[in-house]
Amino acid sequence: MSETTAHKELDPALAAGNHKLLAGYVAQHFQWQCVDGVATITLNRPERKNPLTFDSYVELRDLFGQLKYAQDVHAVVVTGAGSNFCSGGDVHEIIGPLINLPAPELLMFTRMTGDLVRAMRACPQPIISAIDGVCAGAGAIIAMASDMRLGTARSKTAFLFNRVGLAGCDMGACAILPRIIGQGRASEWLFTGRSIGGEEAERSGFFNRLCDPENVLDAAVALARDLRAGPTFANGMTKTMLHQEWSMSVDQAIEAEAQAQAICMLTQDYKRAYDAFVVKQRPVFQGN
Amino acid sequence: MSETTAHKELDPALAAGNHKLLAGYVAQHFQWQCVDGVATITLNRPERKNPLTFDSYVELRDLFGQLKYAQDVHAVVVTGAGSNFCSGGDVHEIIGPLINLPAPELLMFTRMTGDLVRAMRACPQPIISAIDGVCAGAGAIIAMASDMRLGTARSKTAFLFNRVGLAGCDMGACAILPRIIGQGRASEWLFTGRSIGGEEAERSGFFNRLCDPENVLDAAVALARDLRAGPTFANGMTKTMLHQEWSMSVDQAIEAEAQAQAICMLTQDYKRAYDAFVVKQRPVFQGN
Amino acid sequence: MSETTAHKELDPALAAGNHKLLAGYVAQHFQWQCVDGVATITLNRPERKNPLTFDSYVELRDLFGQLKYAQDVHAVVVTGAGSNFCSGGDVHEIIGPLINLPAPELLMFTRMTGDLVRAMRACPQPIISAIDGVCAGAGAIIAMASDMRLGTARSKTAFLFNRVGLAGCDMGACAILPRIIGQGRASEWLFTGRSIGGEEAERSGFFNRLCDPENVLDAAVALARDLRAGPTFANGMTKTMLHQEWSMSVDQAIEAEAQAQAICMLTQDYKRAYDAFVVKQRPVFQGN
Repeated sequence: MSETTAHKELDPALAAGNHKLLAGYVAQHFQWQCVDGVATITLNRPERKNPLTFDSYVELRDLFGQLKYAQDVHAVVVTGAGSNFCSGGDVHEIIGPLINLPAPELLMFTRMTGDLVRAMRACPQPIISAIDGVCAGAGAIIAMASDMRLGTARSKTAFLFNRVGLAGCDMGACAILPRIIGQGRASEWLFTGRSIGGEEAERSGFFNRLCDPENVLDAAVALARDLRAGPTFANGMTKTMLHQEWSMSVDQAIEAEAQAQAICMLTQDYKRAYDAFVVKQRPVFQGN
Repeated sequence: MSETTAHKELDPALAAGNHKLLAGYVAQHFQWQCVDGVATITLNRPERKNPLTFDSYVELRDLFGQLKYAQDVHAVVVTGAGSNFCSGGDVHEIIGPLINLPAPELLMFTRMTGDLVRAMRACPQPIISAIDGVCAGAGAIIAMASDMRLGTARSKTAFLFNRVGLAGCDMGACAILPRIIGQGRASEWLFTGRSIGGEEAERSGFFNRLCDPENVLDAAVALARDLRAGPTFANGMTKTMLHQEWSMSVDQAIEAEAQAQAICMLTQDYKRAYDAFVVKQRPVFQGN
Repeated sequence: MSETTAHKELDPALAAGNHKLLAGYVAQHFQWQCVDGVATITLNRPERKNPLTFDSYVELRDLFGQLKYAQDVHAVVVTGAGSNFCSGGDVHEIIGPLINLPAPELLMFTRMTGDLVRAMRACPQPIISAIDGVCAGAGAIIAMASDMRLGTARSKTAFLFNRVGLAGCDMGACAILPRIIGQGRASEWLFTGRSIGGEEAERSGFFNRLCDPENVLDAAVALARDLRAGPTFANGMTKTMLHQEWSMSVDQAIEAEAQAQAICMLTQDYKRAYDAFVVKQRPVFQGN
């Protein structure tokens, strides 16, 4: 009997201790919609190009933190209302109030924002950002912290921290961005804070592909639905290991993958794929 | 007297304890041919697009393991018979039998396959894959674990583990692939398992260049011959250090290279290069 | 009161213990010019394509080492006199003399050259290389160790260590180059030592962009002036963290950035940016 089968026989009350149902979550500071296991987060202050506030930061951090245990959400799309993704931390609601705060409170803020990226990397669901228009500051970070990014030619991505007197080392950018686009390009993006058009972002490896503005959200949702079709447990393991092996040696990573993949070989989804292959059908994965 | 000179005076019987002669090796589960120090491995079940079996996996692992000590092989080309590179683990001979195996035996399998990548990374010979047609699953991993990859426009590379219900974290892929093509592209390749055409593979940095199908093997062998012309000891040190410095800090890597390069400066090949330069000739390297 | 304000109240005599004035430095083995906080280093033996000598290596290492504490230099441009960047270690003045040196002295040399890269990575000033013509061997390393690289289409970059019988692992190349252009491309550049044209270098992420030969130095200086406009303290923190997070896990990097960015939020430059925004002006940064 596989571990997965055993797992299904767990007392539901015990499983409930580890699992959460989040499809019906009611968001306060952005939109949250979940259809058939694919959730869409819409940053929703279009008149300001969807800036973040203390409140929306905290709610995003907590929501992604809970997604780690969600039973009913298998892929996440992040987008912005109107024709922009996100303009970053609100100048009046975040940048202004931070001035003159003492060091411990500033550190509490930067740790909170960093914890949003941590939560995005730690949850098993693949995250796809659909990016049109302005994608700046903390908005660029949310895009960067996603697993995949679909953009538009007219989009403008800017890691503009130095424009507000700060460093490019925000929420993990000096570690993550170089691994996405290369150390030379990342240095230039972070030192200059300049605006990157969609074609350059795609060519550099920041965007996975370009879409028309009217299609970019649909394309992201379609990709999320494909991933939601599974195998979702294995997809989550892929995500975990991309994170886990970040600073391992190659030999350590190979052992880590030997263990992780052996767990996946014990799932019923692995058997379902083989059984479907034998009868020349497409497998129907169930995430266990 | 340099270390190299001292080395040449070693009792051959002692040297034989560390060295192996592999040019004349007779392979059981693939083709092995070695001409003038350049070996070519041909996966050779073209009617099935050259899948791997338990037997061929183990023989590849053991052969690359022995190459670490080979005295007579200085570069390796990997290719597939017919018009395909490798279709990955055989569905009937590997994927089927793994189902229902207990966890310890599954781990023995995933460790064995991982050890193939380890051996490919640990041997000093540069490995060049010549890739046409299907390059899928474990075939894509063998390509990835090579030092360089020449492909064709019509080739189809697919890290399709999730298509068989498994995770993308196979044989080191979540560590190695992101370093070759960037974290964003690697995430998408591993999460979707989709087929990557040759032009996209080249543009992403996975292929070093594209060749015509009728020339790709010749081009790989020609590159291998150039490398075989040496300096082969220094080439092996380049490969070792690319592996060794994977997860070091920059400062640690710089010290590691200071030591490694000092060893190379003690070789006769270094002196040969200088002597040739002085008389405006091409050096003839001897690998010591 | 912010830390920055407190810092300004330090006894100047104490501050002088940590700070150096380098704008007026008189270089012996290359040209050094500093205008308004932007320094330009010109390798200046154009008749030999600006090779390095023991003397120029040591002076570069010491100068970059002192830049760590410089109060009056905020960005550095490196270029070569004539139409070439740098041809690397002089064959007659370096390569020849190293032959037959004993191991400890060779290690002293490779550590000295590695320390030049260390010093370039450790100083807070962004370094921009302006590259035309030949950029070979140690010249390619100096380009690689810079933060950004502007090149020309006709430039020829070659990590040609194996052409002189040595390994590609020189001064950190096996660690740094793969992070700039990807592991597959870096392997090929280092194993073959071949000459890379400007377009390939740009496409691979080695060059940030291409310029006309007559403009490449001006473009590098213009970029340096933009960076010099600040916020220079924050720019230095960006550089430090790009280096510091090299081999951290993502979670470690996020905590490191939370601390680093909190320090930047305590600077007056951060307040200056906000104050300027409120009155719709451009901030005038002062580097504190």
